[in-house]
Amino acid sequence: MIDTGSTDAVEDICVFWEIVAGRIPSDKVAEDANTLAFMDIDPGADGHLLIIPKHHSVDLLSVPTEDLVATTLAAQRIAKAMYTHLAAEGVNVLNCSGAACWQTVFHFHLHVIPRYRDKSKDRMELPFEPGTPSDADTRAQYARLLSAAL
Amino acid sequence: MIDTGSTDAVEDICVFWEIVAGRIPSDKVAEDANTLAFMDIDPGADGHLLIIPKHHSVDLLSVPTEDLVATTLAAQRIAKAMYTHLAAEGVNVLNCSGAACWQTVFHFHLHVIPRYRDKSKDRMELPFEPGTPSDADTRAQYARLLSAAL
Repeated sequence: MIDTGSTDAVEDICVFWEIVAGRIPSDKVAEDANTLAFMDIDPGADGHLLIIPKHHSVDLLSVPTEDLVATTLAAQRIAKAMYTHLAAEGVNVLNCSGAACWQTVFHFHLHVIPRYRDKSKDRMELPFEPGTPSDADTRAQYARLLSAAL
Repeated sequence: MIDTGSTDAVEDICVFWEIVAGRIPSDKVAEDANTLAFMDIDPGADGHLLIIPKHHSVDLLSVPTEDLVATTLAAQRIAKAMYTHLAAEGVNVLNCSGAACWQTVFHFHLHVIPRYRDKSKDRMELPFEPGTPSDADTRAQYARLLSAAL
């Protein structure tokens, strides 16, 4: 069994499930048969939103293909609208799967974050400092470990 | 026309295209008909890799559905292998579309980053400081602007 480091939250205590069910209000942006997009209340940049599948899955590891594809295609549609309707100058799409990488609500979700050069609208910072390349042996070792599993 | 803020790099000067063509070496992790996954030479955490479609697209806005779905499903397969074969405790998937949000190679790619509590293997930091909620009027305004476009 894969240990995701995450909590397999039951639906009745998942805040996103409450949003899907309409028991917690949200600023809805888009909805289709499989997905719901709504504003993040704690944004990294103005217009930051979340896209979730309506069916409960904990994270990237467990989300069914249909829901993963539907949320991804919704992210692409919304990214385009961020350029045309929010004057975004870039878009980040981020998934966090596991408590060790910032997941706090254990219902699979994509962050879609419009980006701006105007720092009054954009509080995002690079998540790591580039410029410290790995050595070739380490890279080759990780590539072997992973490719053996695939 | 959507201004992505990016350079529509021609294939013969795109480093990822050179990797697909085999003219620049890489540490390959996985390959299928549509996608290639290889180690990032400047990782945010040990085992950080990139997945690209073999056909050239600049970014999320322009990548065709087939390539977007293929790279996303490859990311899910590889995320699972990061848990089982790298002892990852979390996985981040990140796309950067546009120079304003850290895209430096203008060929669509997903970063897949295994995460660890051991900081000697993981140099990632939160990309923004949570705890500064937007006000309700602002959220509602952004939701209206985007939903009108969808």
